[in-house]
Amino acid sequence: MPDESAIIDTIVSIAGKGRGRFHAPRDDVSVVPSRPGSLLVKVDMLVEGTDVPEGMTYRQAARKAVAMCVSDFAAKGARPSSFLVSLGLRRGVSGARVRELALGIRDAEREWGVDLVGGDTNEAKELVVDCAMYGFAKKLVGRKGARAGDRLVVTGRFGLEPAGLRILVDHAVAGPKFGQRAKRSVLLPTPNLEVGLALARHLSAAMDSSDGLARSLHTLARESGVGFAVDILPVASGLAKFAERNGLDVQDLVFGGGEEYVVVGTVPKEKVSAAARAASLAGGELLVIGEATSDRGRVELRQSGRRMPIPDAGWTHLS
Amino acid sequence: MPDESAIIDTIVSIAGKGRGRFHAPRDDVSVVPSRPGSLLVKVDMLVEGTDVPEGMTYRQAARKAVAMCVSDFAAKGARPSSFLVSLGLRRGVSGARVRELALGIRDAEREWGVDLVGGDTNEAKELVVDCAMYGFAKKLVGRKGARAGDRLVVTGRFGLEPAGLRILVDHAVAGPKFGQRAKRSVLLPTPNLEVGLALARHLSAAMDSSDGLARSLHTLARESGVGFAVDILPVASGLAKFAERNGLDVQDLVFGGGEEYVVVGTVPKEKVSAAARAASLAGGELLVIGEATSDRGRVELRQSGRRMPIPDAGWTHLS
Repeated sequence: MPDESAIIDTIVSIAGKGRGRFHAPRDDVSVVPSRPGSLLVKVDMLVEGTDVPEGMTYRQAARKAVAMCVSDFAAKGARPSSFLVSLGLRRGVSGARVRELALGIRDAEREWGVDLVGGDTNEAKELVVDCAMYGFAKKLVGRKGARAGDRLVVTGRFGLEPAGLRILVDHAVAGPKFGQRAKRSVLLPTPNLEVGLALARHLSAAMDSSDGLARSLHTLARESGVGFAVDILPVASGLAKFAERNGLDVQDLVFGGGEEYVVVGTVPKEKVSAAARAASLAGGELLVIGEATSDRGRVELRQSGRRMPIPDAGWTHLS
Repeated sequence: MPDESAIIDTIVSIAGKGRGRFHAPRDDVSVVPSRPGSLLVKVDMLVEGTDVPEGMTYRQAARKAVAMCVSDFAAKGARPSSFLVSLGLRRGVSGARVRELALGIRDAEREWGVDLVGGDTNEAKELVVDCAMYGFAKKLVGRKGARAGDRLVVTGRFGLEPAGLRILVDHAVAGPKFGQRAKRSVLLPTPNLEVGLALARHLSAAMDSSDGLARSLHTLARESGVGFAVDILPVASGLAKFAERNGLDVQDLVFGGGEEYVVVGTVPKEKVSAAARAASLAGGELLVIGEATSDRGRVELRQSGRRMPIPDAGWTHLS
């Protein structure tokens, strides 16, 4: 069983070798060059009992911890530069599992062009991977800028992640192709950083959907002092069939999921086509699903002339 | 029992109100002004099972998590500006305990002039407080700069913390005054940031003693390619008597402790008096306890003409 020192050896032999090698992984603090503007900082903690479903490997868990932070930077339209990882490891953790964690960190470094520059290693009762991420920006997309009339946009479809969780954890039934896609969305969440960056100058407000679409809509509504009317459900393909087979409600899956790591935001009407072009050039898509209204705090679904409230469902820790 | 949202309410009602209020505690990322030079970043994770001894309150634990980071900045001679805290909380945690955590964070903010600017809240099997701290600096004290002939210095005496742990955990016997001081050193560790900052321009190398004096000496020796000869044991007052009463070895307590959060470093001979003056002006003390030698990697105690090797004892997680 590796001790702290061997664990650090393993990790720095695999990860932390990026472009920005300004770090001294064994010094007391890590040093990276500063840049003008604002420093953006973010911590996100992955805890085994809550965030690592059955079937997720240590490699996937470590990558997910970094993805969770990348997603927030994507939603704010700011490029992250580097990150640190604090690990809590069970006593008796094998060298192979530590290697997996290092590989997951390296996967994240390569996928999003961010560098591991430091960290901390501890003993804990369950796996804990806390990612602290940094970046510099001149400007960033807030949560308060949505105005009535702005178009409500998302950068992806919803429902795959909650479906994947039900397949992994509750053994819900799914066709092989949908099942693969759904499980993959849980095990290898992939925030689209480039799309987030491309959209930044078009968005009036945005956040990521890590706690579910309904939660994101209610939060943006509250913070911006607007309401939202959703006209088009951004349903993942194959979801309706999966829902039917398992006696689930499509709308619940779309609104009440979480960890989709999709940008939910608003774009002033006149910027919608430019925003859609920018998202497409960056390899993504922009779906206009509704609009911001002056009906402060009210989030509703408008379909076939009817209006139904969308409750503030979503993930709340410790609830 | 408070949920995530109530927990955040409690924390931001008590902490995170400092000078540098550039944060948006509920946005996806925190924003602080950037400054020229280098960005210094540090994470340190406090885990209940390892870092929170019997008798330590949640308030003290939260303060300690921040102190652990402050200590590293002090040893590097760099002022930290702000920090984020990721919390792992047991299901069923009481509102009173959350309030304690917030008070501990506020204690740390006030003591060291650092601001809480963001964080994350999670459910975990034990208390986890991961502090991510950063600051800006033009220059910092490394671990590689010690040269043979440099004086070996420390900013405090050793042995109180391991004595305090033995009192708290193993119920070792101590006189009331020494017992109080020893327990206090464990429950309220107090890295002296101002002394670290004042010493920065005099030190050729330094690190903090969080894993014990012997470990610090061996690490600095290895990183700088020198050896160390210790002539004077920096023994905390009252320690000899405590050791005798409990059948413990003073030298073990001095070298093999940890979490003293004292700066261990080297000063070129000609700078020693200036360094001592600077430490004293900042309200601290500088003890010259030996010197760096050209005997690469060798750490020894020189007493009454004899030389005894000091083994690389100290704290290693998961060992």
